[in-house]
Amino acid sequence: MKVDLWFSELQNEDVKFGVRVKSHLFSKESKYQKIDIFDSEFFGRIMILDGCFMITEKDEFMYQEMLSHPAMVSHPNPQSVLIIGGGDGGVAREVLKYPVRTVDLVEIDEDVITASKTYLPEIASSFSDKRLKVHNMDAFEFVDSDRSYDVILVDSTDPIGFAASLFSDVFYMKARKLLKENGIISTQCGSPFMSPDFIRKAYRGLKTHFKNVNPYLSFVPTYPSGMWSYVMASNGNIEKRRQFKGRYMNDDIYQSCFALPEFVKEILKSQSVTVNP
Amino acid sequence: MKVDLWFSELQNEDVKFGVRVKSHLFSKESKYQKIDIFDSEFFGRIMILDGCFMITEKDEFMYQEMLSHPAMVSHPNPQSVLIIGGGDGGVAREVLKYPVRTVDLVEIDEDVITASKTYLPEIASSFSDKRLKVHNMDAFEFVDSDRSYDVILVDSTDPIGFAASLFSDVFYMKARKLLKENGIISTQCGSPFMSPDFIRKAYRGLKTHFKNVNPYLSFVPTYPSGMWSYVMASNGNIEKRRQFKGRYMNDDIYQSCFALPEFVKEILKSQSVTVNP
Repeated sequence: MKVDLWFSELQNEDVKFGVRVKSHLFSKESKYQKIDIFDSEFFGRIMILDGCFMITEKDEFMYQEMLSHPAMVSHPNPQSVLIIGGGDGGVAREVLKYPVRTVDLVEIDEDVITASKTYLPEIASSFSDKRLKVHNMDAFEFVDSDRSYDVILVDSTDPIGFAASLFSDVFYMKARKLLKENGIISTQCGSPFMSPDFIRKAYRGLKTHFKNVNPYLSFVPTYPSGMWSYVMASNGNIEKRRQFKGRYMNDDIYQSCFALPEFVKEILKSQSVTVNP
Repeated sequence: MKVDLWFSELQNEDVKFGVRVKSHLFSKESKYQKIDIFDSEFFGRIMILDGCFMITEKDEFMYQEMLSHPAMVSHPNPQSVLIIGGGDGGVAREVLKYPVRTVDLVEIDEDVITASKTYLPEIASSFSDKRLKVHNMDAFEFVDSDRSYDVILVDSTDPIGFAASLFSDVFYMKARKLLKENGIISTQCGSPFMSPDFIRKAYRGLKTHFKNVNPYLSFVPTYPSGMWSYVMASNGNIEKRRQFKGRYMNDDIYQSCFALPEFVKEILKSQSVTVNP
């Protein structure tokens, strides 16, 4: 018999999404956030940060692939990659499918990495790859280094609390300096349907520092509204230079993910700015 | 102060989606189903049939436009349109934006139409259009008529209970007979992520009666997983023949909606068949 135990995310104060839970595997108040791991009936194991779905075994590929591969197949020769956040290891796993030389992963909260290694070993498999170097520090400080990268992927939590600086104008300026010529940055930008200010702000911030700024979308069932946005930016040309076929990504998806529904185009055009992005 | 009143849809026995409700405007056990209308904080007014989200004021355009316009812009000259189901009036509203001659809407449950006219007047605005004729009868019987159509849009509830016949092989055969030369049929096919058998079965059924069968996707935040599928089929060529710009649909979306994530392609290819589609 299934137990009537539910975990629900309050997606905003008027909308919630719940899943039936088999067991509560892990719970810890880290230095930065509350980390919970559940085993659920439909989505398999789930990582929750501060009450929000980050990863489920059933649909994580949709987000991880779509944050990683559009940039990776667009860069002429991606050798050095910087991942901001991504402590679960899923984006690193995708990036390491390419013949890259080095991947730096800057995750402020090492407890997230430990939890992922323990409870989501398939997703955290990348941590044993010798090309991956983990830096447990604030990414906003890390980007002051004199390193340089071909691709930067921002796999952070949403722009509230300690992750807010990762969507600031100053961060985009620093990221631009870190990128080699024709380098590409991609960042997750939330749900245009639930939080239109988030993608609008990121799009405009990136526009002031990059010549080509391409927003795109993918489905992610366990994220609010199921409609997730990303923005890819570069001072080089953004075009497909190699193939990648995953469980979500393929050539057709690369061509089509940049097509935006009319209301999303309107969001990017409109002038509305609110205090909390 | 907001009241702590929530309506939740059990999307399957392990997943639920809830919205905070301001008031319960209407409730009726019709001859066919339970009809509820709520006013909600985030999504505006909502129509629920047998516990499932059918329409919310905030995101209805995404479904209505994407069921209607891909077929309408692909047909050489859509003059006569048949809508199966669609008692809320939203699909008819989209279709009547074209210079069509007649629209037949076959809704088995006239209580749905009455509820929509009363509580969702913007969505039900099409019912005052003289080109629209409403038939309150079982669509499976209606399709035995000797009428003929340029476009058929199947806007039914999911293939359980009284709507199951609308996804049967016999129905597709009858629909084919009803279509004029180069006529187009489009049908909603549920969430490939939550109910892969639904689109697989519809796709295969249509394949046996039509030369060109094109599955496509759109976002619909209040439907399970937010990822909704449709299949468009015709014995003529399916290509864009006119433009339509709505709140979701535009030229880019038409080109891109047919791109399927790899796992959806796999669903359509695989042989798995279960008893309940």
